[in-house]
Amino acid sequence: MTDFYMRPLDMKNGAVDLTHGAGGRATAQLIHDVFGRHFTNAWLDEGHDGALLPPMTRPVAVSCDGHVVRPLFFPGGDIGRLSVAGTVNDVAMCGARPLYLTASFILEEGFPLKDLDAVVASMAKTCEEAGVAIVTGDTKVVERGHGDGVYIAISGIGEKISEGTISGRAARPGDAVLISGTMGDHGTAILSFREGMSFGTTVESDCAPLNEMVEAVLSAAPHVHVLRDPTRGGLAATLNEIASQSNVGILLEESTVPVRPEVRSACEFLGLDPLYVANEGKMIVIVPEDEADAALAAMRASPYGENSARIGHVTDDSDVPVGMVEMVTLMGGRRTVDWLAGEQLPRIC
Amino acid sequence: MTDFYMRPLDMKNGAVDLTHGAGGRATAQLIHDVFGRHFTNAWLDEGHDGALLPPMTRPVAVSCDGHVVRPLFFPGGDIGRLSVAGTVNDVAMCGARPLYLTASFILEEGFPLKDLDAVVASMAKTCEEAGVAIVTGDTKVVERGHGDGVYIAISGIGEKISEGTISGRAARPGDAVLISGTMGDHGTAILSFREGMSFGTTVESDCAPLNEMVEAVLSAAPHVHVLRDPTRGGLAATLNEIASQSNVGILLEESTVPVRPEVRSACEFLGLDPLYVANEGKMIVIVPEDEADAALAAMRASPYGENSARIGHVTDDSDVPVGMVEMVTLMGGRRTVDWLAGEQLPRIC
Repeated sequence: MTDFYMRPLDMKNGAVDLTHGAGGRATAQLIHDVFGRHFTNAWLDEGHDGALLPPMTRPVAVSCDGHVVRPLFFPGGDIGRLSVAGTVNDVAMCGARPLYLTASFILEEGFPLKDLDAVVASMAKTCEEAGVAIVTGDTKVVERGHGDGVYIAISGIGEKISEGTISGRAARPGDAVLISGTMGDHGTAILSFREGMSFGTTVESDCAPLNEMVEAVLSAAPHVHVLRDPTRGGLAATLNEIASQSNVGILLEESTVPVRPEVRSACEFLGLDPLYVANEGKMIVIVPEDEADAALAAMRASPYGENSARIGHVTDDSDVPVGMVEMVTLMGGRRTVDWLAGEQLPRIC
Repeated sequence: MTDFYMRPLDMKNGAVDLTHGAGGRATAQLIHDVFGRHFTNAWLDEGHDGALLPPMTRPVAVSCDGHVVRPLFFPGGDIGRLSVAGTVNDVAMCGARPLYLTASFILEEGFPLKDLDAVVASMAKTCEEAGVAIVTGDTKVVERGHGDGVYIAISGIGEKISEGTISGRAARPGDAVLISGTMGDHGTAILSFREGMSFGTTVESDCAPLNEMVEAVLSAAPHVHVLRDPTRGGLAATLNEIASQSNVGILLEESTVPVRPEVRSACEFLGLDPLYVANEGKMIVIVPEDEADAALAAMRASPYGENSARIGHVTDDSDVPVGMVEMVTLMGGRRTVDWLAGEQLPRIC
């Protein structure tokens, strides 16, 4: 309590210490010098533990996601971009326009301030791209050996823009199944990077906010039934969830599922199946057949959707058993695309 | 992918492992068997990564808080109750009625499932008491040695019920400063317990949801200027923040600040000042003098407010310098109540 005038934070060589989480002057300084420098809006400037937003006259979509990805910086992104894009996408997949985020940081003692600064700068940039504001936040510090640099939990709030119900329960036999690009980029990028592997080309994460694409799809194809981003567990786990929630079968055509050659090579080497590997900038769109072409065109015209493809359709029980996903293989046979059972990739998001 | 039929979770002797965070079948099982058993509402049953809530026609209050308290279970509470009450209180301090929460869990590999179950049960009970619903959630697992059992980040959403502006910037000279009970209970309880200290009576955390008290105060004293819960940094840090944001001085009377005898003893032993120690079930109310008695009566009639007291008033520059907090001591002198500078209590919330 004697240290009234604190020295400025040493952003170059300094590190997070336990005082930064104690709620006193050091916490205030960290918030001011790091978060305050990158995030500015009327809500944060209020300096309260909460924020007051205008009324929301349409249904409100909310989502939350904790991020523990390792390493914090990887080809194509970092935990900052990932955490903002991840929550923005979850809100958008409700058929909503994301507007506000809350951000909770769990910092490990010893985490370099310059890394924190880079993460926060990346969050701010991604927020700007997605058109969302971080309106309130929280910072805690844990002792060395009880964290891993930084963990970030983000909640998102948005307004529903779709007219109909968009839900994992809404897929109907005859619907087309579309995806917005190549499968497996994010998880493969993380794992290749961790293992120090190189395949000529670096595999990059696809981590990106998809809210603009969602808006484009909803205006081109207003009767979309399902929007979902195939993150942990990949395309396979997500489609299985939808098949089970909607009580339908899903049939895929392997030849139509886009996978980058370098991702395919890396997956072969690592013993992974790209269909089970996480994506962080892709979405599944399940839409009535008569709006499928319009939806696909809107996806392809969007910044992150150039490789969008139609990969299959929803069936009734007479084709694929209800609750199951099957695939016509490259050889022309059929195989079940099962749920993911065990651990494939720890801490990929 | 061969393990199609999983065995039920061993809730008695089982532990969290990395598969529980991988987004596949084990994650689904953990969510179903643990979270699904305690939290049930239409939003979670939807099984989506987000939730759709009804429109909110009044201004929307949001808040978030990460919880890393150590130990997870302590006299008077646990991380589950703390995390729900903490966010409920932050929303309520905006002059709002908390309605919805989102919950993000970061689990450490090896964390006993029975402890997770106890934490989740406690969250559910506190949600019920506060009248809020957890509408969406997320679970991640980190390797042993990168967490500490469980960290929980909660965001809260509510509707503003106060008519006027309630803000740390709204304190005015002449306002009365009220608190809703004894100071320092939570932080002292955590630290005494950690240090294995006993003072005849166990010091218990005051951790509790205050939304009911906020509603009672707002209906008794509709022109309340500031509501704030003195958590990390305690009464001293919170009042300093308010003095600085409102550009006023604050003068306290030491003799009127309630502190439990066992908390006073523990603090003396630990070298702490109860004014700087965190509370988790108390609030500061700053209110125009003509509504002070009504506010105080409403606080005292509330379940967690029986020891509410008037402890001082807001001054202009002629008494206490603007931005400062001073206290008339028991001896009749005056001292400055400074900000907290360094670390006092790591990981108390």
